[in-house]
Amino acid sequence: MRVRSLHMNTVSDTPLVAIIMGSQSDWPVLENAAKTLADFGVACEARVLSAHRSPHAAFEYATTAQKRGLKCIIAGAGMAAHLAGVMAGLTQLPVLGVPMDSPHLKGLDSLLSMVQMPGGVPVATFAIGKAGAVNAALFAVSMLALNDEKLAQALSEFRANQTQKVLDTKL
Amino acid sequence: MRVRSLHMNTVSDTPLVAIIMGSQSDWPVLENAAKTLADFGVACEARVLSAHRSPHAAFEYATTAQKRGLKCIIAGAGMAAHLAGVMAGLTQLPVLGVPMDSPHLKGLDSLLSMVQMPGGVPVATFAIGKAGAVNAALFAVSMLALNDEKLAQALSEFRANQTQKVLDTKL
Amino acid sequence: MRVRSLHMNTVSDTPLVAIIMGSQSDWPVLENAAKTLADFGVACEARVLSAHRSPHAAFEYATTAQKRGLKCIIAGAGMAAHLAGVMAGLTQLPVLGVPMDSPHLKGLDSLLSMVQMPGGVPVATFAIGKAGAVNAALFAVSMLALNDEKLAQALSEFRANQTQKVLDTKL
Amino acid sequence: MRVRSLHMNTVSDTPLVAIIMGSQSDWPVLENAAKTLADFGVACEARVLSAHRSPHAAFEYATTAQKRGLKCIIAGAGMAAHLAGVMAGLTQLPVLGVPMDSPHLKGLDSLLSMVQMPGGVPVATFAIGKAGAVNAALFAVSMLALNDEKLAQALSEFRANQTQKVLDTKL
Amino acid sequence: MRVRSLHMNTVSDTPLVAIIMGSQSDWPVLENAAKTLADFGVACEARVLSAHRSPHAAFEYATTAQKRGLKCIIAGAGMAAHLAGVMAGLTQLPVLGVPMDSPHLKGLDSLLSMVQMPGGVPVATFAIGKAGAVNAALFAVSMLALNDEKLAQALSEFRANQTQKVLDTKL
Amino acid sequence: MRVRSLHMNTVSDTPLVAIIMGSQSDWPVLENAAKTLADFGVACEARVLSAHRSPHAAFEYATTAQKRGLKCIIAGAGMAAHLAGVMAGLTQLPVLGVPMDSPHLKGLDSLLSMVQMPGGVPVATFAIGKAGAVNAALFAVSMLALNDEKLAQALSEFRANQTQKVLDTKL
Amino acid sequence: MRVRSLHMNTVSDTPLVAIIMGSQSDWPVLENAAKTLADFGVACEARVLSAHRSPHAAFEYATTAQKRGLKCIIAGAGMAAHLAGVMAGLTQLPVLGVPMDSPHLKGLDSLLSMVQMPGGVPVATFAIGKAGAVNAALFAVSMLALNDEKLAQALSEFRANQTQKVLDTKL
Amino acid sequence: MRVRSLHMNTVSDTPLVAIIMGSQSDWPVLENAAKTLADFGVACEARVLSAHRSPHAAFEYATTAQKRGLKCIIAGAGMAAHLAGVMAGLTQLPVLGVPMDSPHLKGLDSLLSMVQMPGGVPVATFAIGKAGAVNAALFAVSMLALNDEKLAQALSEFRANQTQKVLDTKL
Repeated sequence: MRVRSLHMNTVSDTPLVAIIMGSQSDWPVLENAAKTLADFGVACEARVLSAHRSPHAAFEYATTAQKRGLKCIIAGAGMAAHLAGVMAGLTQLPVLGVPMDSPHLKGLDSLLSMVQMPGGVPVATFAIGKAGAVNAALFAVSMLALNDEKLAQALSEFRANQTQKVLDTKL
Repeated sequence: MRVRSLHMNTVSDTPLVAIIMGSQSDWPVLENAAKTLADFGVACEARVLSAHRSPHAAFEYATTAQKRGLKCIIAGAGMAAHLAGVMAGLTQLPVLGVPMDSPHLKGLDSLLSMVQMPGGVPVATFAIGKAGAVNAALFAVSMLALNDEKLAQALSEFRANQTQKVLDTKL
Repeated sequence: MRVRSLHMNTVSDTPLVAIIMGSQSDWPVLENAAKTLADFGVACEARVLSAHRSPHAAFEYATTAQKRGLKCIIAGAGMAAHLAGVMAGLTQLPVLGVPMDSPHLKGLDSLLSMVQMPGGVPVATFAIGKAGAVNAALFAVSMLALNDEKLAQALSEFRANQTQKVLDTKL
Repeated sequence: MRVRSLHMNTVSDTPLVAIIMGSQSDWPVLENAAKTLADFGVACEARVLSAHRSPHAAFEYATTAQKRGLKCIIAGAGMAAHLAGVMAGLTQLPVLGVPMDSPHLKGLDSLLSMVQMPGGVPVATFAIGKAGAVNAALFAVSMLALNDEKLAQALSEFRANQTQKVLDTKL
Repeated sequence: MRVRSLHMNTVSDTPLVAIIMGSQSDWPVLENAAKTLADFGVACEARVLSAHRSPHAAFEYATTAQKRGLKCIIAGAGMAAHLAGVMAGLTQLPVLGVPMDSPHLKGLDSLLSMVQMPGGVPVATFAIGKAGAVNAALFAVSMLALNDEKLAQALSEFRANQTQKVLDTKL
Repeated sequence: MRVRSLHMNTVSDTPLVAIIMGSQSDWPVLENAAKTLADFGVACEARVLSAHRSPHAAFEYATTAQKRGLKCIIAGAGMAAHLAGVMAGLTQLPVLGVPMDSPHLKGLDSLLSMVQMPGGVPVATFAIGKAGAVNAALFAVSMLALNDEKLAQALSEFRANQTQKVLDTKL
Repeated sequence: MRVRSLHMNTVSDTPLVAIIMGSQSDWPVLENAAKTLADFGVACEARVLSAHRSPHAAFEYATTAQKRGLKCIIAGAGMAAHLAGVMAGLTQLPVLGVPMDSPHLKGLDSLLSMVQMPGGVPVATFAIGKAGAVNAALFAVSMLALNDEKLAQALSEFRANQTQKVLDTKL
Repeated sequence: MRVRSLHMNTVSDTPLVAIIMGSQSDWPVLENAAKTLADFGVACEARVLSAHRSPHAAFEYATTAQKRGLKCIIAGAGMAAHLAGVMAGLTQLPVLGVPMDSPHLKGLDSLLSMVQMPGGVPVATFAIGKAGAVNAALFAVSMLALNDEKLAQALSEFRANQTQKVLDTKL
């Protein structure tokens, strides 16, 4: 079971955020989540884990996530995207879902499969594809920043820079 | 763990078909599957089992289904309808999905969450709601009839009657 | 400016979670979020605040939310549902969006208006209507529980009870 | 009437599964079903057969399928995809539908035309396009495996390999 | 095989237009087509005929329609609405399709199943439900009027009256 | 006002069918209708005519169509595709609508704008794009064939050839 | 040709805004536009006018609107909602479209038929149903207010009151 | 804060129309609005301004727009497209919305996020993408032309030319 750990200059040695995905082909999109977390120095681990093709591993991953020190799980999946929901049923850590683009229905299937969770087991869902990957990571940062003053400061700077970039845009 | 067994005049004492559903409120719809199976004398068991709210029980149910003598699983669920997909990941029995109507998106979310399974783990999906429940049961009968001459004969009669009813309809 | 505070048996005197909504008619749905938080003893405040009809108040509310001690904002809105996005642009607190049912498009407009946030400013989105309201509250609890052992314990019990209810369901 | 038979190393000399499709252009997608069946040594026959452009041949094909030894029919079609439904009305063999991608509506038309069968005549429907083609074949294998221990074993190995591939994925 | 003939004051003794439908429950909607034809004195016959549940009868009906003197076929069906397409594959008479409302997807499934016919076999499709039933009948009249001066005159009067009603509307 | 007349080997010197379209860019698609008509020797005229950008010309065209000897009008348009409906309001000739593909919504807008005509003024609608263009022409032929034995024979041969091509397809 | 004039306490004797609609059944919704205009003292006239069933009257109405002193046209229509587009093609007055709810597709057809106008002839489109009717009227007021200081002041007060109502809402 | 002013041969030195957009990548589409305005000599200013990433600047821009002499604001945005709605909540100038194409949902999300504004704060919405950009500009011209005889004349000529181009089209 291979896990890619990313903790360049991280605020913690242990990964705080997991980025899991249904297929290797989701990585180019979810890498944006990993990079965003890395920009904030938040250690994360990333791995492929399918709710359907590797259910036992998914089961074990979810049930041990909290005790391994993870603070939240970002799950990206496409089509009938069950990964985030399955995680959310097995851990009480916050689970953030990123619907992947899909070959025919353009991610509408992935989106509805994630966001329409029945009451009782929440999945916080973000936009389809890259925007969602970035935003899931930023949301994870905002959660962690609730109890990490330094991270709150970094987020504040990120937001100010982001605003400035908009204001500096020339047409 | 309560399981409702339905085997009035069944061809077998052991349930051959499982009907599981995400919530008790799905029963009035899925009861149509149970009744259809009962009409053919196919024993079934029916129970509530949520992929999200009772994942361990769902896990156990799926992994033991085959050795308990079940031949297929009909799973009904609504909204982000993961139940059928989760079953399909944990058993190699045929899994038949019935997308339930949902409060806002009218079952379109349930349908896409079931039918759009990525390659590798199939869920045979039927129409949203009652039509799908009846058809999942009829499909289960057609599978079992492949190796049960008596059942094949019963299905043949059912189809002939059904045709006759159409021809007899008066406007 | 009237704010309804709900802190019956709360773990804190100050509201930790804000529940805001675009219109009074959203309250019967969002009250489910308030009740869920109350079940966990998490103090919340609830108020009507429109991104379009009361933009200055929304602006002020968002920009002062953090310093007033809030830890996250649950925003419910329908149709062109901008409230959550506008909040998210003005605070770095986690913003949780609940798309309301809408008269014609059944909340699909509300859902897409919330979840499809461009990269940079995240809104964690939940299901349309009541399921989303309950889940946004449960998600808020799971975030707060990351740093509140007692709340984590309460969430754990809630989940166990929820599972037991499924297992006890009789058809 | 040309039929392409595929039985390389098949468990049976007679085709057990038919793969029919509305147009030659569907073959590159449905070939994935044929290859999947071949991997399991399940003999299949493949042919073009249009419910609209060759209705008499479709009629004859469906009504004689069972006596020719077929155990199930996989039907792929696009747009107003009637082929699977027409087959299902004329045989009591299990019919598996694969909605093809379509030029404008991206297979949503094909999907709804297949899955939304009214009660009485079921079509087991799978995902749009390639994923659906593979899954229809795997589902056919799971049906046949109910009464073929060797095939059950092969399916079990396929699933284990598939799981291992996920676990071995490196990012 | 019961056929309801409607030829009150008709211009011909033989039915010129067939109104067929997948289920008796479609009659209240398709009766509007029958009434509209009756208003023009165009004899029609109406009957239930399912492409799936009574395929042989449907087959026979379509292949004999022309020689029985019919000039066109109006086919109403809901959900995976194949009836019109199946007719169109078996007769070269003009086939007019009326998509029926459906329990969950509100006729969108019926509409796409009818209108998205692949090139080669046309179905002229009208609006979902009552508006479509009326318009299919009016369209049939316009076709017949191409070679029936009296009918052309009647249609002309109908249109003038219809216009006058709009102009006379008081708010 | 330029009209392109196409009557190579036509059964009549006067155009019987008009093919009009909202924009020159629709011609590559609608040319398929023209070619199909030409294959049957049915004379047609083709021109660009916008309901919005050239309403007076459209008005004049529609109101004079019948007396100029036309038997039906094929109208192709995209996006908010009003051309067919506007024609249908101004002539009692049969109007056949071909929804064009559109840049963003892929013809779904064009389709709904055409097919959902309120009761009273029918537009016979065909599939989006090329399939619809071919089918509108074939439908026009089937209408004309009701009173043209030679054309009926040609249509019969076309259908037989079309069937043969399906049967001859090799995979 | 009956026109309902509404100018209670209007700033002008001549109607400045026309409210037209495809059918009398649209009036309960569009009456909200009339009432909103009346609240601002803007004289309007309201009438039923169908692009399809009364095209000549619609033609005349549009081409004479400007010289009769109208400043803008609010057009409400449902299903294949062509009225606003037809108006816009015949006058250069600003045309505001209100998509009406429709029996099956819930106004999605009406919305796309209005808003997706090809480049060259604009229709300013508002929300489906009542919200759109009110907003079209408010938008008309904002246009007229550009050159009417008193109306600008009234609009300013309306907005302030609207804001105050939000702030005063008690849950 | 950089604003691109475009007033080549404009009827006024001060910009009358603002073109704002959520991102620089929207400019190639919205440039069509700028060019259309320039064709009529209407001065406009164009700038990037995000409701989410630069809310304070957006706030200031909207609240000062009227006193800076602007007559209307064209706002283009994609995905959860809040920019136009946020503008409309902060100014009583007419706000015209152009939904941008989006990476996955093809602008349907942008469209619904703009057009479905709740009653009280209108956004006049146009088609997705380029057609909408051109039409928003033409609509702005039609509003300004209500009080500018020269502009009315120019619009009249534009429309006549546009009609002539349609009539001159050769196939």
